[in-house]
Amino acid sequence: MDQKGYRRGSFQSATSDEDMLEIAGASMDFSMADDDPPLDREMGGFSSYNGGGMNGTSTMMDFLEEPLPGVGTYEDFNTIDWVREKSRDRDRHREITNRSKESTWALLHSVSDAFSGWLLMLLIGLLAGSLAGLIDISAHWMTDLKEGVCLAGFWFNHEHCCWKSNTTFTDRDKCPEWKSWSQLILGHGEGAFAYILNYLMYVIWALMFSLLAVLLVKGFAPYACGSGIPEIKTILSGFIIRGYLGKWTLVIKTITLVLAVSSGLSLGKEGPLVHVACCCGNILCHLFTKYRKNEAKRREVLSAAAAAGVSVAFGAPIGGVLFSLEEVSYYFPLKTLWRSFFAALVAAFTLRSINPFGNSRLVLFYVEFHMPWHLLELVPFILLGIFGGLWGAFFIRSNIAWCRRRKTTHLGKYPVLEVFVVTAITAILAFPNEYTRMSTSELISELFNDCGILDSSKLCEYVNDFNSTKGDDLPDRAAGPGVYTAMWQLALALIMKVFITIFTFGMKVPSGLFIPSMAVGAIAGRLLGVAVEQLAFYHHDWPIFSGWCSQGADCITPGLYAMVGAAACLGGVTRMTVSLVVIMFELTGGLEYIVPLMAAAMTSKWVADAIGREGIYDAHIRLNGYPFLEAKEEFSHKTRAMDVMRPRKNDPPLTVITQDSMSVEDVETIVSSTTYSGYPVVVSRTSQRLVGFVLRRDLIISIENARKKQDGIVSTSVICFTDYCPPLPPSSPSVLKLRSILDLSPFTVTDETPMEIVVDIFRKLGLRQCLVTHNGKLLGIITKKDVLKHIAQMANQDPDSILFN
Amino acid sequence: MDQKGYRRGSFQSATSDEDMLEIAGASMDFSMADDDPPLDREMGGFSSYNGGGMNGTSTMMDFLEEPLPGVGTYEDFNTIDWVREKSRDRDRHREITNRSKESTWALLHSVSDAFSGWLLMLLIGLLAGSLAGLIDISAHWMTDLKEGVCLAGFWFNHEHCCWKSNTTFTDRDKCPEWKSWSQLILGHGEGAFAYILNYLMYVIWALMFSLLAVLLVKGFAPYACGSGIPEIKTILSGFIIRGYLGKWTLVIKTITLVLAVSSGLSLGKEGPLVHVACCCGNILCHLFTKYRKNEAKRREVLSAAAAAGVSVAFGAPIGGVLFSLEEVSYYFPLKTLWRSFFAALVAAFTLRSINPFGNSRLVLFYVEFHMPWHLLELVPFILLGIFGGLWGAFFIRSNIAWCRRRKTTHLGKYPVLEVFVVTAITAILAFPNEYTRMSTSELISELFNDCGILDSSKLCEYVNDFNSTKGDDLPDRAAGPGVYTAMWQLALALIMKVFITIFTFGMKVPSGLFIPSMAVGAIAGRLLGVAVEQLAFYHHDWPIFSGWCSQGADCITPGLYAMVGAAACLGGVTRMTVSLVVIMFELTGGLEYIVPLMAAAMTSKWVADAIGREGIYDAHIRLNGYPFLEAKEEFSHKTRAMDVMRPRKNDPPLTVITQDSMSVEDVETIVSSTTYSGYPVVVSRTSQRLVGFVLRRDLIISIENARKKQDGIVSTSVICFTDYCPPLPPSSPSVLKLRSILDLSPFTVTDETPMEIVVDIFRKLGLRQCLVTHNGKLLGIITKKDVLKHIAQMANQDPDSILFN
Repeated sequence: MDQKGYRRGSFQSATSDEDMLEIAGASMDFSMADDDPPLDREMGGFSSYNGGGMNGTSTMMDFLEEPLPGVGTYEDFNTIDWVREKSRDRDRHREITNRSKESTWALLHSVSDAFSGWLLMLLIGLLAGSLAGLIDISAHWMTDLKEGVCLAGFWFNHEHCCWKSNTTFTDRDKCPEWKSWSQLILGHGEGAFAYILNYLMYVIWALMFSLLAVLLVKGFAPYACGSGIPEIKTILSGFIIRGYLGKWTLVIKTITLVLAVSSGLSLGKEGPLVHVACCCGNILCHLFTKYRKNEAKRREVLSAAAAAGVSVAFGAPIGGVLFSLEEVSYYFPLKTLWRSFFAALVAAFTLRSINPFGNSRLVLFYVEFHMPWHLLELVPFILLGIFGGLWGAFFIRSNIAWCRRRKTTHLGKYPVLEVFVVTAITAILAFPNEYTRMSTSELISELFNDCGILDSSKLCEYVNDFNSTKGDDLPDRAAGPGVYTAMWQLALALIMKVFITIFTFGMKVPSGLFIPSMAVGAIAGRLLGVAVEQLAFYHHDWPIFSGWCSQGADCITPGLYAMVGAAACLGGVTRMTVSLVVIMFELTGGLEYIVPLMAAAMTSKWVADAIGREGIYDAHIRLNGYPFLEAKEEFSHKTRAMDVMRPRKNDPPLTVITQDSMSVEDVETIVSSTTYSGYPVVVSRTSQRLVGFVLRRDLIISIENARKKQDGIVSTSVICFTDYCPPLPPSSPSVLKLRSILDLSPFTVTDETPMEIVVDIFRKLGLRQCLVTHNGKLLGIITKKDVLKHIAQMANQDPDSILFN
Repeated sequence: MDQKGYRRGSFQSATSDEDMLEIAGASMDFSMADDDPPLDREMGGFSSYNGGGMNGTSTMMDFLEEPLPGVGTYEDFNTIDWVREKSRDRDRHREITNRSKESTWALLHSVSDAFSGWLLMLLIGLLAGSLAGLIDISAHWMTDLKEGVCLAGFWFNHEHCCWKSNTTFTDRDKCPEWKSWSQLILGHGEGAFAYILNYLMYVIWALMFSLLAVLLVKGFAPYACGSGIPEIKTILSGFIIRGYLGKWTLVIKTITLVLAVSSGLSLGKEGPLVHVACCCGNILCHLFTKYRKNEAKRREVLSAAAAAGVSVAFGAPIGGVLFSLEEVSYYFPLKTLWRSFFAALVAAFTLRSINPFGNSRLVLFYVEFHMPWHLLELVPFILLGIFGGLWGAFFIRSNIAWCRRRKTTHLGKYPVLEVFVVTAITAILAFPNEYTRMSTSELISELFNDCGILDSSKLCEYVNDFNSTKGDDLPDRAAGPGVYTAMWQLALALIMKVFITIFTFGMKVPSGLFIPSMAVGAIAGRLLGVAVEQLAFYHHDWPIFSGWCSQGADCITPGLYAMVGAAACLGGVTRMTVSLVVIMFELTGGLEYIVPLMAAAMTSKWVADAIGREGIYDAHIRLNGYPFLEAKEEFSHKTRAMDVMRPRKNDPPLTVITQDSMSVEDVETIVSSTTYSGYPVVVSRTSQRLVGFVLRRDLIISIENARKKQDGIVSTSVICFTDYCPPLPPSSPSVLKLRSILDLSPFTVTDETPMEIVVDIFRKLGLRQCLVTHNGKLLGIITKKDVLKHIAQMANQDPDSILFN
């Protein structure tokens, strides 16, 4: 019975161990990364069926105590059955509700069960918010450590250090307590030698941080690398990756995230914060039986945790919830929406009470603009949108090409060396340029900022004409030399960021894409903004400006251009839409600027989609072959269920079990000669009328159990799946009744069903498999993997790129 | 063949015309309300099957021209088949995409097709925004008309009139151009007689407006009454109510909404604005084939239009989108989310550029608070939440009881009299009390307002102690006599609003619930807020205040309490959650106050849910028996498909058609003796193996067509649904091949499938019917109506309350 094609489509993983170890290019140490330590116990005479290796990581504890032990758990790298999980939760809920009428204790239990979801959200919010605060404070301190140290206490960062001193804000850089490395070592900070010393210290610290990060990731938690969003999307769609959201991953990711951000690499902490929040959610789930034991319920919690993660990353709770809804989640009922919002809010306020930015602001980049924008400005905004879309598409292509190269060549074998080289290049290039030396979030803050009258930054060095200033409103002014220098430096920074980010994202350190993307866009936006501003200043008599931008008026806000550019680039890379605009809206707090943001985000998405349909996360999902069934893309080909089902036309017929005519031995032969996770049960081989579906695991456990405990069950005993078993001659051995393990409601479609409908059913109901019938006769089976492979094939991709089940 | 039970569950409406005419208590004139004028053409020999009356309103135009004309349209009061609609759209899209490679023209067509959705959203936003602006301006003017007239031009409202004069804002009420009716008629405004005259004019105008409204609704567009949200929810869930979103409804609803709001009745314009926006969406759909011809696509547009409606009602685009997602929509793919957001934004900005409030603000109630709140204040906020929940539950129960009374007694026959009496009572009670005389939205605005130093309103008459005032911050002060008077008046207004709203909502005029609910909550909140403020002022040494509210500090903001109360009451009535908080957040614009709002909204929902699960809209849906399958509530009973399917145990077997052995006459007999909308096709009566499903309509049209056009088709011709028809003796008449109309992929479940899974399938896939099998044999059928009736039965409700199909 060689059904190779079907086997690939079966539930049991048929991929080699090596494939599995290459998730996101990480070679993993399972004994550390695994959240549920593998029990590796001998499973009767059947352990060989599990394929060995990781698949032996069974969570089956003791199958003799409960009626059907081991049922309801999944093996690693398998797909969950949403329908079954939800049914199980409803059964549980029904039981608690029924019992609650019996006693006060049961009533209390029922109430506490109902509120456990809210309690869990509260805990996730508190934990995620605290961790985010911790990460912010540490990263701030360590980033400044690259440049110098505070004499008043080495644990103060530069800003904090200078608060203590009585200098004014403008002299912030020169407070006496803060010593740069040259000042500390040489006693002075002037001259070429001091510069070189500072340069050297900067590079050395950066290398130390990044090497420590990559070694920690490599040694203790291989899952801690990358942004984690592609994997979280896959997990939320119903896939099991044990240990991905475990406590070791949490600890190592938190530490290495601080190190990676501090090292000055072109990466951000926003994506990884989502991963950190999801780890918190997953770990806290263990406190509540309701969520610990049910994979579907747990995924609801993880969706909310993802919202909390974005919420703390940007201080944007509504945006976080929409991000989770739009980008990350798969199954998002309205109850989850409300709870996610709660978790996101708690997380945001926890972060605010920790106050890592020292300004009591909720948001990462607080911006206040004074002037409305003019309709004509939509032209540059749309230009920024086009730039964002082009950059997004370019970035995705280059990054995926580079990551594929890393996966397929020797490059992937030297992750530490890779990090060393990229960090060294980044640090060496970054130090001379003020705008790359500062941390990326500081840079974005400065670019978003609208120049006030007292601003001392180079970007605000305009030629002041105090005669025309009225109150707070600053008119457009001629750019001073500082602005021109800043423009050159920003242009160089732009080029550097554009290229270095391609090589940075995907290395074996935690790395988010939000901040680098936004930085690229913000620089481009600010450059364009200043250009338009100067154009309007010198040529305010041009017809296009004449109506709205007379001399001495403040009509162009370059900070707004930076913000629009940031939104455009982020949109181009991630293809976020509503959540992007809402996050940006929460940063400014004014509905006024939604229209420019929306125009840029829309243009950017259209342009990027025209070049390549996939966002960066989907591209990485495909690169890694995760079994993710995209809910956004419509399946648009005219194939039918019969084209996808196994067995194929010339294959041997489907392996089935009959309902009342097979002996224990027959079934054991079928189980041992195939690797499928389940078998259809039919009335008889000739009629092929479907009765139900039985899972391999249940079958093995039940037979094993019956042989041990039930008298008279031998190899020739007939297995009977019906209610009433047919009478047998008195000499024959007793019958093994297995109706209880039979799924009597398997999903079926006819062979003529269009695949678009089949895909829809798999997506919306979260199926693992679906049986195919023709005129009431069983014909074949379609698994989720078959569907994914078919979609890949239709999109002219390699169908075998889909790994796992 | 009497299968009465099954017939009720069939697709063809079996309810009487009278039932149908009682939608929302409205007796309708279809010739006016219908958007597609009924063609009432004779449908061959089969028109009698259609049940006559409204069901004859077929949109089938000419079934001789297209291969399968009439297919894809639905009769009135029928449920659409989402799967079929979506398949059809995918086919259409596939064809356009394929053609686009052929010529430039086809490519342009493909591009314009892709962008037509965006264009449509733009148009909806513009139209909805303009109409909202028009309604605001007219309602403003007519509300003021009840009190007086502007001499500078009768078309100016009070505020506008006094802008022209040079008086200051504080003397706003006394500008010389504005004359109250007594001033105009008597020449002076003082004295008892003048007061009585003004009183009389107020009542007369109110009666005129409301009577005009009810007569217009009754005479021209019965669907224009009520808030429309329950019906829109039902339509979006896949039900057809022709004319409900038609142009007459739009025109009449717009006019009568202005009249109803101006009459001073206790109702708002927010719910009806959603209906108006949906009408705009539906009418504009006719411009694009893509949306005109596909019921599923059209519902995507309507979801977006609903978002635009809320967006203009409150000036809250994000809240509007979330409202549409959470409360109104059924099928809401992510593409719709993004487009809804666009439509909502365009609508909001159109409204702002019309500037009906004259303050260039986007939002209806703009609030700016200065002081943060203290954690201890959560106690009164939660109390407000409890009040909101209790009021919500009380309102829903009383209103539903009253509406049921109206439906079942003679009361419903005198809608004009009812409106007359309620308006008279409202106007007579309202005039003496300043807070009920002003329009409800003005009242809410005033209650939300934080008292500034220059505020002249009675609510802000505090005892000023200018010594302790520092800058803008006003400390808590002792309430002056004005505040105490205002408290009494507000308490009376609260009692009046609480009761009169119960009788107002459901009358035959357009009436929204948002504003009255918010008013009740805002009054209660302000009362509590002032009480807490005075408590804190006089007893600032109490331990609970000592830590944070010392003498001379500004610690309590009564306006915030009003806002929290408004959110709580609105939440109690509608059970909105996230959208409610986001709408309120958009009003204040500060994340600061989200926590109090969320605490109140959560408490209110929990309290109200503990008393009764349904929100007001769901309660009205149930009252009117609309076939709405609630997506939020989980079905939690342990029944199986076999308990719900037809035929029941002792009924005659299912009516089926065999694939190749029935004659035209046999089929015609089946069609004429039953009223089902479709028939399963089986291999043979004995095997009962399912082949497919054929729709009644398709069958009738095809046979009719074949008899007319195809030679040799007589009553004894065999109908053949297979690919290869069995050879017949040469003497027999030619075979009628009908495979093309057979649906080869009907949905099936087994008889053992739990109903919770069946309900889930119906909900998520939007099915109209599902066939039930046992061991591969066809056993029965479950329609959407069967599911709805079963849910009603399980909830101990009358299953026959579900009308229509």
